[in-house]
Amino acid sequence: MAGKGVMLVTGGAGYVGSHTIIQLLNNNYSVVAIDNLINCYAEKNKKPESLRRVEEITNKKVIFYNVDIKDRAALEKVFKAHKFDCVIHFAALKAVGESVQIPLTYYQNNIAGSSTLFEVMRDNNVKNIVFSSSATVYGIPQFLPLTEEHPTGQGCTNPYGKTKYFVEEILKDVCTSDPEWKVILLRYFNPVGAHESGMIGEDPSGIPNNLMPYISQVAVGRREKLLIYGDDYDTPDGTGVRDYIHITDLAIGHVNALNKINESGFKGCRAYNLGTGKGYSVMDMVQAFSKVSGKDIKYEVVGRREGDVASSYADAQLARDELNWVATKGILDMCRDTWKWQVKNPKGFQGT
Amino acid sequence: MAGKGVMLVTGGAGYVGSHTIIQLLNNNYSVVAIDNLINCYAEKNKKPESLRRVEEITNKKVIFYNVDIKDRAALEKVFKAHKFDCVIHFAALKAVGESVQIPLTYYQNNIAGSSTLFEVMRDNNVKNIVFSSSATVYGIPQFLPLTEEHPTGQGCTNPYGKTKYFVEEILKDVCTSDPEWKVILLRYFNPVGAHESGMIGEDPSGIPNNLMPYISQVAVGRREKLLIYGDDYDTPDGTGVRDYIHITDLAIGHVNALNKINESGFKGCRAYNLGTGKGYSVMDMVQAFSKVSGKDIKYEVVGRREGDVASSYADAQLARDELNWVATKGILDMCRDTWKWQVKNPKGFQGT
Repeated sequence: MAGKGVMLVTGGAGYVGSHTIIQLLNNNYSVVAIDNLINCYAEKNKKPESLRRVEEITNKKVIFYNVDIKDRAALEKVFKAHKFDCVIHFAALKAVGESVQIPLTYYQNNIAGSSTLFEVMRDNNVKNIVFSSSATVYGIPQFLPLTEEHPTGQGCTNPYGKTKYFVEEILKDVCTSDPEWKVILLRYFNPVGAHESGMIGEDPSGIPNNLMPYISQVAVGRREKLLIYGDDYDTPDGTGVRDYIHITDLAIGHVNALNKINESGFKGCRAYNLGTGKGYSVMDMVQAFSKVSGKDIKYEVVGRREGDVASSYADAQLARDELNWVATKGILDMCRDTWKWQVKNPKGFQGT
Repeated sequence: MAGKGVMLVTGGAGYVGSHTIIQLLNNNYSVVAIDNLINCYAEKNKKPESLRRVEEITNKKVIFYNVDIKDRAALEKVFKAHKFDCVIHFAALKAVGESVQIPLTYYQNNIAGSSTLFEVMRDNNVKNIVFSSSATVYGIPQFLPLTEEHPTGQGCTNPYGKTKYFVEEILKDVCTSDPEWKVILLRYFNPVGAHESGMIGEDPSGIPNNLMPYISQVAVGRREKLLIYGDDYDTPDGTGVRDYIHITDLAIGHVNALNKINESGFKGCRAYNLGTGKGYSVMDMVQAFSKVSGKDIKYEVVGRREGDVASSYADAQLARDELNWVATKGILDMCRDTWKWQVKNPKGFQGT
């Protein structure tokens, strides 16, 4: 393969994976994507619909394998078939509530699976990786904005969050054990929005766990009303404040992380927040979405959800300084692109 | 099988496993042991030597399978062949220094392996487990003595310690997800000594990682001298202070834990320290061993070892109150039994 290098993207058919692949292809990386398709729509024996559209958007090809990272033999085959310069590791289960219900499935997929992937990487001498982590590793914020120095792993109240923290620790230990590894941990705040084309976007199966897809499904008439979990938080309007980041900004952050890993002198393991540094409340988002879509968003305020914090937002300075990355899109962009995706694909990938 | 119940003991051929099996058999439990034998001596196609001797000591039989907990299919077979009342889970890699060198092997064995074991337990409706944890989960002590309420997972500096902490968290989450599980986490301080018969004991391969086998091998002439890592700690004689516990006391603690799990009303996940509550320094142990063995223990003081703390000892009150368990053996017992084992088996199990 030609271009800047060959990337293995695990979980490549998912929301963050597919948007990142667009940016990789646009930056002349070659991409091999794997996914077990448990949360993605694909016609039988075909490429997942999200990646089919990525190819349409970019007019470039993605090599795809239906492979689960827990399957060592299948992973080995992929590593034998291609010479990877770097792995971008998205593959994980990610529903907080579900992780409380079926923790072993989460530990098996996210930790045992990652650990198997890292072993196969080591055995094939591929030691560069960008890991899809989360601001959830910070637990309950001890101070705001959250810097990368904020303690991690304390007060992670759900198995999903713990798996992100544990995998970060595993990668740190791998770097300590072998100086050839180069690792970047990207701690996402709240990715929302969709590709500007409206052709790909977030496509949760069942009831959305996250705010934006929920708002969007209410706006399009697929759900009756939004439930707002608590309006008595210590925030300007009482609803929870989060750092929403446009998925395209987030995706570009991965390209910058690759540039960083490829800098001479880069070594070991570094963590970077990917957020805008600005916090918006649930009500802010509802109003912005209503404005952009021209739709009334029906909502009902209900009780707080266990484990939710009042506010969480990033200090985004380190990524600016070291990755030369900054989020450029605001909440109107986020709402506009979500809405475009929703209107074009009212039932997600499957309904089209 | 008859008796009080059928126990699956993972890592049953190891140091703590084999001593615990004696106590289980003596208390009329039936035992099925599994072990992957990577740290145990067994003649080809025979029962591991440690378990052969357990049978000789107790005049009872142990069913043994050469099974690795990472091997789901093999575990399934064992669970289909027997109806277990409880699992006692010892199987783990345990060398702190090695865990820094080959972290992925530790994460794969200790976390992925445990997670697979728990899934097989769940699938076979075996939901009682005693887990072999460690005081290492407390990290650097924030206060002494260490109570079970001391924070865990903070400042665990090595992958071995992290795996114990992570497995504790996994088991807590499993209990939250399914109230049928009954879990006891036993946090060992520093197990030493040997069965009073001198027939089984600690048999480290290569250079011992722990103080007592090292002292003992110096006393018997197998090693030239003991290295003492630092004599400038803030302790009475400057050497590190630890809570040593006789392996027989520790083993009995598991029987008490089983009784606790079988109490009506026991539910969820409980952690107990197994220690004496008394701290002894390296020099205390050298002197006691010298006295008991009549041998001069040559030693050399060298620099501190990274990650070592000055003092660590248990608050043993909770196990006393809730498990009705207390350590009864002192350091002279610990040294005497270690010495008996060493003299009878100067080269461990293999040399006999």
